[in-house]
Amino acid sequence: MQREAILLTPGPLTTTLRTKLAMLRDWGSWDSDFIAVTARVRKSLLNVIQGQETHVVVPLQGSGTFSVEAAVATVVPPSGHILVLDNGAYCKRAAKISTMMGRKTTLVPTPEDKAVSPIELEALLVKDPSITHVVLIHCETGAGVLNPLHDVAKVCEKHNKGLIVDAMSSFAAIEIDARSTRFDALIAASGKCLEGVPGMGFVFIRKAILDSCAGNNTSLAMDLHDQYVYMEKTGQWRFTPPTHVMVALAEAIQQFEDEGGQPARLKRYQRNYQTLIEGMAALGFKPYLDPSVQAPIIVTFHAPAHANYEFRKFYEAAKKHGFILYPGKLTEIETFRVGCIGAIGPIEMQQAVHAVALTLKELGIASGAPA
Amino acid sequence: MQREAILLTPGPLTTTLRTKLAMLRDWGSWDSDFIAVTARVRKSLLNVIQGQETHVVVPLQGSGTFSVEAAVATVVPPSGHILVLDNGAYCKRAAKISTMMGRKTTLVPTPEDKAVSPIELEALLVKDPSITHVVLIHCETGAGVLNPLHDVAKVCEKHNKGLIVDAMSSFAAIEIDARSTRFDALIAASGKCLEGVPGMGFVFIRKAILDSCAGNNTSLAMDLHDQYVYMEKTGQWRFTPPTHVMVALAEAIQQFEDEGGQPARLKRYQRNYQTLIEGMAALGFKPYLDPSVQAPIIVTFHAPAHANYEFRKFYEAAKKHGFILYPGKLTEIETFRVGCIGAIGPIEMQQAVHAVALTLKELGIASGAPA
Repeated sequence: MQREAILLTPGPLTTTLRTKLAMLRDWGSWDSDFIAVTARVRKSLLNVIQGQETHVVVPLQGSGTFSVEAAVATVVPPSGHILVLDNGAYCKRAAKISTMMGRKTTLVPTPEDKAVSPIELEALLVKDPSITHVVLIHCETGAGVLNPLHDVAKVCEKHNKGLIVDAMSSFAAIEIDARSTRFDALIAASGKCLEGVPGMGFVFIRKAILDSCAGNNTSLAMDLHDQYVYMEKTGQWRFTPPTHVMVALAEAIQQFEDEGGQPARLKRYQRNYQTLIEGMAALGFKPYLDPSVQAPIIVTFHAPAHANYEFRKFYEAAKKHGFILYPGKLTEIETFRVGCIGAIGPIEMQQAVHAVALTLKELGIASGAPA
Repeated sequence: MQREAILLTPGPLTTTLRTKLAMLRDWGSWDSDFIAVTARVRKSLLNVIQGQETHVVVPLQGSGTFSVEAAVATVVPPSGHILVLDNGAYCKRAAKISTMMGRKTTLVPTPEDKAVSPIELEALLVKDPSITHVVLIHCETGAGVLNPLHDVAKVCEKHNKGLIVDAMSSFAAIEIDARSTRFDALIAASGKCLEGVPGMGFVFIRKAILDSCAGNNTSLAMDLHDQYVYMEKTGQWRFTPPTHVMVALAEAIQQFEDEGGQPARLKRYQRNYQTLIEGMAALGFKPYLDPSVQAPIIVTFHAPAHANYEFRKFYEAAKKHGFILYPGKLTEIETFRVGCIGAIGPIEMQQAVHAVALTLKELGIASGAPA
């Protein structure tokens, strides 16, 4: 029997049947019906961050990483200098992206079990006035840390630095208010906390800097300024949009709004998170992060100390019980991760914990306790 | 009543319900089930061009244009010099892409109602030995011309030039045999003649040049060499794949193979094309191209001379009758286009012609004849 597993992964994630059913129709990308979908989605996205006055939003084909690269290449001029406080894998990736495209990039290591420090950031900005832009990963899913977006934005505003926020895993779940938090660009994607399917990203760009972005990007496909100008003029995407992904996102956003928007989604994810860590604690598992820096998005657990533990076996056994776990992404310590996001609630999280309990039993692991 | 129109557009196009139904499941991108889908699709794609011995295939997130840009940036070194014989909009776009990324590019205008000339190409290559690569659009859907891939490849091979083929609209419909036609890269996408949904492209790269591609691309997201190396090592995509688009493509490929592969698909499209042009001729419409250079993929028709004709009205009226047409893309002459591709057959083309007949009647246009 082929049962469909629940994804406890941070995107792709489990979506509702209603969202997937929206994909059972083909759309002409040039047609007014699809143009209306694009317009509606863009409006809803701006509403999520109260950004109608301050920002525009530009959707882009590809995975979230494509949108991160597009945002950096569009917003930061070739002469720019980017600072990344590195507390995880996605910080390193952002720095790699900007280095490869020829933007001067300074990567400052900080502990991956701590949030980045706005105080340290300020000191670095004062020390090196050549820095023009800061890149922040809002929820660094490498470990699961929630970084202090608002305080970082305050420091950047004070020192008149551009801020680019990778909000891939936080957008629509963690509060972001563009009226009180200033950023030049903020990036998220369809297949994350909006609970759509993967295949497109979107970037909020601050209106005040929009004109200055023209001509920065040496990529045609990923030039967000060009995409924006064309979209405003025609309502269309410049190049073939992922039509089915887009209508699924529109349907997912409708459900997001019906649920009560970001506050309601955060509450559900917090309940998922609580259910998960309490259940896992009862099995002996220990989260890697201190709760004070933990986002209720994805939880990193230490690998059990027991000799029978091996991630691949653990994963396959949990999958047989209907749940897809996620490997760890820390370099020094053996861990695994469990996502709290997607179209799931505490009931699924209880079942997930139960599946892990059965998995431990089958593998002959008495406790999830780490070394 | 909301009826679902049939798309006579060259991608997105009409797909089968079976293809769309494949999207009613969520997949973990890291999971072995999805890794198997990726492996199966890659193998099938190589089979379409008999490329198992000579080429590898690298899928990429985004629209087809993303894959074109990725191919040029990955295959052509920064010191390269690209020649494009320009007979349409997609030639111009390819040249714009390569110019923007800093590759020296020579765009030579040729008539857009003619195929590019291998003889002219050879003369240009002899005249300027600094040219390292040629970009060819196999089926230039700007007008609908089929360009002579095999003969162009022979010229490039003779003069030891790299050849990059945009086969977006021809792949899986027009025969391409990698054993007898040498190219360094060939690009196509999910939402074209394989009749999948849009959201990803793929690039065939010649094995003999693969190693030399390392480090050419300054984009992380679009570095096909890096994507290839990672995929070979792990079976996974580097960044979140469009999982639903990918499984729809797998399902579409299964139907493609069941139908009889490329020869059967070409035969169906040729029958669609014949049905279309015969029916439209009876209504007075005149195709823009001579049949000798016309691909059975998309047909450009001259706009009717009648004073009541206006594309927007014509389009909306035809849409009410259930068919989505496509605007023209020629700069000098007023035209519209009708696609012959997608999960449709001669019956749908007959209905389409009938819809156009009713549309003319409603608009009070006695004949489709051009000026």
